[in-house]
Order: sequence, then C-alpha cells, then structure tokens
Amino acid sequence: MEPVGIERYVQHVGEELVAAVFKAARPLYGLRVLEVNATFHGGGVAGMLHSLVPLMNDVGVNADWSLLYGDPSLFQVTKKLHNALQGEPVSLNEQDMANYLRVNEAFARYSPVAAGYDVIIVHDPQPLPMIRYLQKGNPWVWRCHIDLSTPHEPVWETLKPFILRYDAVVVSSEAFRKPDLAVETHVIPPAIDPLSEINRELSEAEVGRKLDQYAIPRDKPILLQVSRFDKWKDPLGVLQVFQRVKEAVDCRLVMVGNMATDDPEGPEIFAQVARQVGAMEDVHLITQTDALLVNALQEAAAVVLQLSRREGFGLTVSEALWKRTPVVATNVGGIPLQVIHGQTGYLVEPGDYDGAAAQVVKLLQDPELRHKLGSQGQAHVREHFLMPRLLLDWLRLLAELV
Amino acid sequence: MEPVGIERYVQHVGEELVAAVFKAARPLYGLRVLEVNATFHGGGVAGMLHSLVPLMNDVGVNADWSLLYGDPSLFQVTKKLHNALQGEPVSLNEQDMANYLRVNEAFARYSPVAAGYDVIIVHDPQPLPMIRYLQKGNPWVWRCHIDLSTPHEPVWETLKPFILRYDAVVVSSEAFRKPDLAVETHVIPPAIDPLSEINRELSEAEVGRKLDQYAIPRDKPILLQVSRFDKWKDPLGVLQVFQRVKEAVDCRLVMVGNMATDDPEGPEIFAQVARQVGAMEDVHLITQTDALLVNALQEAAAVVLQLSRREGFGLTVSEALWKRTPVVATNVGGIPLQVIHGQTGYLVEPGDYDGAAAQVVKLLQDPELRHKLGSQGQAHVREHFLMPRLLLDWLRLLAELV
Repeated sequence: MEPVGIERYVQHVGEELVAAVFKAARPLYGLRVLEVNATFHGGGVAGMLHSLVPLMNDVGVNADWSLLYGDPSLFQVTKKLHNALQGEPVSLNEQDMANYLRVNEAFARYSPVAAGYDVIIVHDPQPLPMIRYLQKGNPWVWRCHIDLSTPHEPVWETLKPFILRYDAVVVSSEAFRKPDLAVETHVIPPAIDPLSEINRELSEAEVGRKLDQYAIPRDKPILLQVSRFDKWKDPLGVLQVFQRVKEAVDCRLVMVGNMATDDPEGPEIFAQVARQVGAMEDVHLITQTDALLVNALQEAAAVVLQLSRREGFGLTVSEALWKRTPVVATNVGGIPLQVIHGQTGYLVEPGDYDGAAAQVVKLLQDPELRHKLGSQGQAHVREHFLMPRLLLDWLRLLAELV
Repeated sequence: MEPVGIERYVQHVGEELVAAVFKAARPLYGLRVLEVNATFHGGGVAGMLHSLVPLMNDVGVNADWSLLYGDPSLFQVTKKLHNALQGEPVSLNEQDMANYLRVNEAFARYSPVAAGYDVIIVHDPQPLPMIRYLQKGNPWVWRCHIDLSTPHEPVWETLKPFILRYDAVVVSSEAFRKPDLAVETHVIPPAIDPLSEINRELSEAEVGRKLDQYAIPRDKPILLQVSRFDKWKDPLGVLQVFQRVKEAVDCRLVMVGNMATDDPEGPEIFAQVARQVGAMEDVHLITQTDALLVNALQEAAAVVLQLSRREGFGLTVSEALWKRTPVVATNVGGIPLQVIHGQTGYLVEPGDYDGAAAQVVKLLQDPELRHKLGSQGQAHVREHFLMPRLLLDWLRLLAELV
C-alpha cells in the first residue's frame, strides 16, 4: 500500500485509459471518500483496497480506508451471513444479531467514520448495518463482493432494511444482481494490480529463489490452487483431482492459502486437508502469507486450479492468467468471466473431478496448448481486469452520486 | 462498548469522584480526541478503551477510536518491539523496520486519523511512528503500557526519534518511567470497569451456570491464572506451582487465556503448555474468549495466581481482587501496586515456585485469611483502580495539553 503514480500503469493498459481516468477524476477533486471493510490482509477485498485507495488519492480524490472493529463474536456471525448470501440455509440466532448490531453501533458512534465524508463505501456484510446508526447526510454505497442472485431468503430479509438505506449497490457481475432489489445496482467487476507484489513481473532467478525457499522442486509440472482454506474452495476436491491426474502424468500439487482474520472456520478446514494429505507424495500445503511466493508459483505452475463450489469473483484466476498460466476452474461466480472455455482455460461443473482431471491431463500433455491458452488469458485480463479500469469505473460511479 | 452513563458508577466510587469528572470535562466540551491502538479485543488495552471511549463521550469529549491497519508482518515486528522494551535483547532486521514504517505510513496517509482531531493518543509501539507521516498541528500523546525503565537500548534508540515528536508520554507507574527521556512523562495507572461483563457482580446461580458450561466442578478449591498464553506470563511456572500445592492440598487449576490477534507467538506457547499438562489431573486449559467465564472464575477461585516474569500492569490482578479473591503474584511491573504483600495477597520473586506454592497453601488452609485479604483487596481496587479515576486523570491531562 504505497503511494503510486497512475502513469506507471501505461506500460500495461496504454495511455488512453490513463487519460480517461484523469478526465473522470476532474469533477471529483477534493471529494472525501471513505472505504470501510473488515480486514486489512487476506482475501481479495483487502488486496483491491491496497491498490485502489492510494490510486484514488493519486488522481485527486481524498480516499481513506477504515477497518471495522471486530472480535471473534462478530466474525462468527458475519461468516454465517456470507454463507447465507451465497445460498446456504444458515440460521441466525438472537445473540448473533445482537453481536452484529452492537459492533456496528459502536463503530458508527466511536470511530472516525462519521467525520465528514462526502461518500462512504461499505464492503460486504460486516459493516453493512453501521448506516443505521449515523445520520444520513451523504451518499452511501454498499459494495457487495458476494453473488447475491440466490441468497437464503430469511437472512436476506433480515439484511434488506439496512441495504435499502444505501444509495447504490455495487456487485461484481451482471449475474450477481439480486433481481428484486429496489436499490439502484451497478456492476463493477473487480481487478488485479499488475504492479503489486503478487502480480509484478519476476525474473527467472526470483522465481527459482522463492521456490527454493519453500523447498518446492521443479522436477515435475506443478498444479496450483491459491485459496483460503474454506469449504467453498473445495480443497478436498483439489486433492481428488490431483490423485487422478497423477495416474496419467507425474506432477506435484501446491496449495497455498492464508487464513483471513475474519474467518473462524479456516484452521478447522486446514486440519481436514492436512489429515487427508497424510502421506501423499508431492503435495505441498502452505499457509504463510507471502505475496511473492504466490506470484512465483502462479508463474511456475503448469496449470492452475480453482475448484470453488461458490465464488465471489475468484480474482486468483485473473492473477494466474496474467502470468500466462491456463486455468481449470469451476463454472461458478465470476470465474466464467475470466476463464473462457477453450480460450483461456477450461470450465467444469463443481464436483466433476473426473472432468477437471481430464482437462488438466490434456494441458500437461500439450505444451503448445498451454502456451496458447496462457497468452490468450493474459490478453483477456489486460483488457478487462486490471486496476486502472476498476479505478475508472469507480470514478464514474462517484460522479453520478455526488 | 455500549453508551453508558457515568452516574451508574456512583454506587462504586461515590458522588464526589463523579462530580470531579464533570468539572474536569467542562473546559473540554467538543474536544475531538482520537485513540489509536492495534487490537479491538484481547489484552488490557482494548478492554480499557472499550470503557474509556464511551465514557469520554458521555461527559462531553468527542472521543473516537481507530484501529491501526495490521498484517502478520507488522505483528511479527511489534511483538519484537514489545519484548525489547521489556528488556529482552531482541534484534530488528531491516525488513522488520521497513514493514513497521510502511504500515504506519499507509495508516497515516490513508486512514481517517488525520481528519482534524485536536488531540491524538497513540497506544504502545505499534502505531508509534505514524506521527512522523503527518503534519504536526496538535498535541500527540504516546500512551505506553509497557514498563520502559530498562529497555534493550539499541531498540530504544531506534524508537526514540518517534517518541521525541510526542508532546507527552504516559506510563502506568512511577517505576515505569524511562529516566533519561526528555519528553514530559505522566503517570496514569490503568483501571478496570466494574460495570463490564468481566467485572460486574454475578449471582451465585450465574457463577454456577458458567462453570457448568465449561465443565469445571467446584468439588475442590480452584487456583486460577487469567493471562494470554505468552512466555512472559510463565504458564509453565503456573503448572509447577500447582503441582507443589497439590501435594499439600487437593485442588484444581484453571488457566484461561485468549489469543490476542497481534501476538504471533500465542499458539506456539499454548501448544507447549498443553504438552506439559498431558495427563495431569484437575487442570483445565481454556482459550475461548468469554468475559463472563473469566468473571465467574475470578469469583469462584480460592486463590488467583499471576506469575508473570515481566508485566505491563497486570490488570487481571485488580479484576481478581475486585471479586474479593486474594492473589499470589510476582513482584514485577504494576503488580506490587495492586498486591500489597500480606494485605491484599502475597508477592514472590519470578521463578520462586516453592515460595509461591507455600503462600497458596497457607491461603487454601485458612478461609478466614482468604476472606480478610479478599476484602482488603476489593477496598484497595475501589480506591485506586476503577474506571472513573482513570477518566478523571485523562481529562486533567487533556486540559493541560490543549
């Protein structure tokens, strides 16, 4: 999260987009914008804010970022809300709701959040209700990174009174809209930052050093999944696919996943995966937070997997494609916007481990195919999923709101 | 962290102190104060801010609370800084310092912290350097909860340039002052909140239900230590003392410690303790965050232990004394301000497990002595370590600064 100059992106997106960004920023000079979410590291939302907030400031918008207070009781309930919005039949008890509202009320009352911002952008369900505890005097945006199309209805009805207080809702894909939501809903797909530690171009030597540091040999092709240890990411399914692939082509599996501080289920899921791996050969599980390692692995991998059962958007897919690595992934959430079947990778249905394994084997056996899909993947990300486009979308939305 | 009325404390501290608070607040109406620390739960600092911030607002000061951005790389280095300030010869490498400064610079630049506060109060080393990245325009206070009397000098010299930018330093005890620090240093001992979940009066039935919930029988007298699993709290020493006591008087040991999110060593220390406990009988280890359980245990315990090798202040001692439970504790940090030897409990030197065990045995064998010391302990806390006194001290310091 360093001060950056937007002009450094010209090499990746060209001058026209950068000029369009400055033009869109002109009516917004000095606008005070506050982004609020619940975590500073781990997960795609924090990663995007690390780039977006400094870039907004760079082009003349006074954007700040504030972290919602959180304690284990809050994260227990917001994890439930997350799962419910993704469609799981979750029930909230009274204590859950009381904890959720209590933390949001304290945050509204005792944090700098009310300190005279012109626009407040609230990410995901954790800080959603804080709007109820402040006098409305400016536009508020609820930026939901979760697919809202088929939520568990009782929980949706509980959250809707808060959502109705917002001036706009932003989702990541047309398919994520809640059809009957009365609030004006905009679509802004997320993006990756090609200058960040996780995406910047590495030399062969840097890649080699990182893999050596974690004792990952390059003697066999590497399959990789980068995802938090979360049941929705189906880490046990990844092991199944790996075992099937390995019967046809000898290879290595690396699974990297940090534990987001707001996910109380992480350690338990990780333990399940570790038990399952047991004495399996050529499997590496890594929980360290090391952006350069993820970068090096996505660069070094032959194929990247993303076998999520549900996804917000799945930006790790774009991260892999950006490094010209083809992706075999499930056809859920935002993944089909990134993996164009047969062009940047292959789509399978969740749970279709045979299908996924077959596609991986095909790619492992055909270096030219990998190269072609990888190049097309990078071009696709360059056009749709890089940070300056995201910045431009936000500037245009802000201009509509103020 | 709920809105409270200061008048609710009259029952505990009398009307004169409450009147003095209102008088001290009069010159401060509308003053905008920001408290900054690194955690919202776990540890004494967060606990105090949960009470102090709403109380300041209740009496007319516009106090807010903001959380420093943090990621694992930050907490690695700030844990080192904490240990170094307590005197451990810790060395910081360049990467540590770079991470420490980078997070603080981002926070200063992109958080609402600079949004026009009249006074900024920074807690402990984590957010200390942010002052360097903002234009100085108002008084800043560094509120250090660590004993600064004998820090590891190389680290102290590294931090001093930041400390010198502050208008005042606040420490918890006369003994915690750094003798050669040029910045004006004030002493404000910390305090507990008698109305919080951890300290409010429980009925016998509530105590019983909580102990039942965690399957802790009351068939034998209970020894208790409440502390994060941290080497400075000497949890292995607690086990030693318990074993010696149990040879003389049959009893039960309960150790309760949550894991602060900013302490990367917690899980490792806990694992050591759990291995050591192994098949020992009558030992209960609890890591859940449950304020009411801590309250019930401090109420139900025959004797509370606090065998820290170093301490900030050790507010858990006052929590226990407030429930009329005598405390056997080491003579370090702020403990001797709370445990008056022979009057509210007994002091031993760190590592003197025989001495500690002898004092515990004496107390277990003499219910009248326990009762006498317990009553004196509660009176001592009432006079010195309750929240309204802390509030008054802060209001008076703020009045000096603005």
